[in-house]
Amino acid sequence: MGLFTKDIETFDDLFVHTLKDIYYAENQIAKNLPDMISKASDAQLKQGLEAHLKETKNQIGRLEQVFKLHGVKVEGVDCPAIDGILEEASEVAGEVSDKQVLDAALIAAAQAVEHYEITRYGTLIAWAKQLGRDDCANLLEQNLKEEKAADEKLSKLALSGVNRKAA
Amino acid sequence: MGLFTKDIETFDDLFVHTLKDIYYAENQIAKNLPDMISKASDAQLKQGLEAHLKETKNQIGRLEQVFKLHGVKVEGVDCPAIDGILEEASEVAGEVSDKQVLDAALIAAAQAVEHYEITRYGTLIAWAKQLGRDDCANLLEQNLKEEKAADEKLSKLALSGVNRKAA
Repeated sequence: MGLFTKDIETFDDLFVHTLKDIYYAENQIAKNLPDMISKASDAQLKQGLEAHLKETKNQIGRLEQVFKLHGVKVEGVDCPAIDGILEEASEVAGEVSDKQVLDAALIAAAQAVEHYEITRYGTLIAWAKQLGRDDCANLLEQNLKEEKAADEKLSKLALSGVNRKAA
Repeated sequence: MGLFTKDIETFDDLFVHTLKDIYYAENQIAKNLPDMISKASDAQLKQGLEAHLKETKNQIGRLEQVFKLHGVKVEGVDCPAIDGILEEASEVAGEVSDKQVLDAALIAAAQAVEHYEITRYGTLIAWAKQLGRDDCANLLEQNLKEEKAADEKLSKLALSGVNRKAA
């Protein structure tokens, strides 16, 4: 991005910028999930995060399809939001000494990541439809559906035993 | 937080840490909202953000009550997540040259902020209940309810005209 120029002139530019933002974010999430998986003790949490890593890789593939459908180069753009969310997740995890408390912290961190994705996909879907790109919106809807399901699974996991064990 | 010590030992420590995190976040949001309000052109968006600034100040008051009920000092802790989300909001807004496109970008940025709050309050409520602090959970529920309503209002505003005008 330019320091002295305004690079986002049109609504289409804003859509593409935000697509690059979530593309960068998904890639950072894919890089960070293995560390979270290695820190998790609860077997169901570990499996859930592993399944979400596979899903994340598929989601990156769908985003690449969206770039191609829309006729723009596949690339990311720095996303301070996801960098901050992941930095915080790592910092907090590093502060927790008890394994069962750490599981509760990891769920909270993963849900913060999910919510970032949920908000960005929600926005991108609305914008894609406004731009007449229902083909792009359909692919983004698939990612959103998976993120919402992942968030709900994490809530269930927390409430079904992880929080109780941590307390 | 200590560099060589692990400061979060118990589930209660994790709850208090996350309470301090959202307290810092709400204060940063209150500081940043006036800038977003000044950048908004759409009258309904401006009014909506102004109303949310008032709500945010009330939410800070409720958080202070939670600290007191739980018997801990009212204080914040650095929250790289909200710092990143707000930094990104400011960066993107600075890149947009068209006022109507900027309104769409501001809604997206505000919704990213709301979703961070939604995930943190969701977590804190579950943890407060697990800790037997239904009194704290009730106050946090009020904040969560307002954040969800604010997010829905922003979605409606985007779909009712802001996106169309931007496109």
